[in-house]
Amino acid sequence: MAHDLVLRLARRDDLPSIVRMLADDDLGSQRERYEEPLPESYYAAFDKIDSDSNHELIVAELNGGVIGTLHLMFLPSLSFQGGLRAQVESVRVDKPYQGKGIGSDMMRWTIERAKERDAHIVQLTTHKSREDAHRFYERLGFKGSHLGMKLSLR
Amino acid sequence: MAHDLVLRLARRDDLPSIVRMLADDDLGSQRERYEEPLPESYYAAFDKIDSDSNHELIVAELNGGVIGTLHLMFLPSLSFQGGLRAQVESVRVDKPYQGKGIGSDMMRWTIERAKERDAHIVQLTTHKSREDAHRFYERLGFKGSHLGMKLSLR
Repeated sequence: MAHDLVLRLARRDDLPSIVRMLADDDLGSQRERYEEPLPESYYAAFDKIDSDSNHELIVAELNGGVIGTLHLMFLPSLSFQGGLRAQVESVRVDKPYQGKGIGSDMMRWTIERAKERDAHIVQLTTHKSREDAHRFYERLGFKGSHLGMKLSLR
Repeated sequence: MAHDLVLRLARRDDLPSIVRMLADDDLGSQRERYEEPLPESYYAAFDKIDSDSNHELIVAELNGGVIGTLHLMFLPSLSFQGGLRAQVESVRVDKPYQGKGIGSDMMRWTIERAKERDAHIVQLTTHKSREDAHRFYERLGFKGSHLGMKLSLR
């Protein structure tokens, strides 16, 4: 892996760094609350994620600093003869580190991790308008075969 | 709910009915194995799903027969201030019962169930070619805002 990047499970004390990255774009700034101290709801969600072996909240560390995050989840399913699905959500690379191949390294690590756990597929959704992201994932082998539909309940 | 439809958690002995529906289309027939006895991998996946309170494998029953299924999952997440996501996979209505509003009833039940569990969103993906499905979900309030990307590992 280039850049001496370390991918590891997130710890509770990584949460401010992670939430800062989630909040640091147009959509995120509307829906997240990056403040000191962090709202308790983030810690409550972290504890649920951290205690569930089907969830791996990952951070990318470079020279001791957290510069990326993603949430990898494993979804047991009946389809594909009871095959396990891997799903990726909330992929972020800190702005000063974008465009340097960090995201590709994170996704290649993720794909290997999904294979280790014997998932048959990795799936994710990205906003239709993010054509740069579509090309990024296509270069990694993903195919944009599906429409991702969402119903907000709030 | 019309049709005296009953939505309930699936039991182990519902599996043959569920797998039959999963296998009963062009894509499903290529990837599923509906045979007697069912491959053990389906039972193993069922046991994982059934023992995880974040997963609800649902069947729709009409006059004592299983005529529909869906897999509702709840995904803890940091985004949206640690909000819970609901995701729906593997929605099927048995062919003789399609076009009678059964699917709408199943999805309306699912949306209510997601609200009960305090999810802030319901998300799903459907194949881009399935324009009838897109319209179906749009009528229920879903917006096709995302591209669903998949990487097969086999």
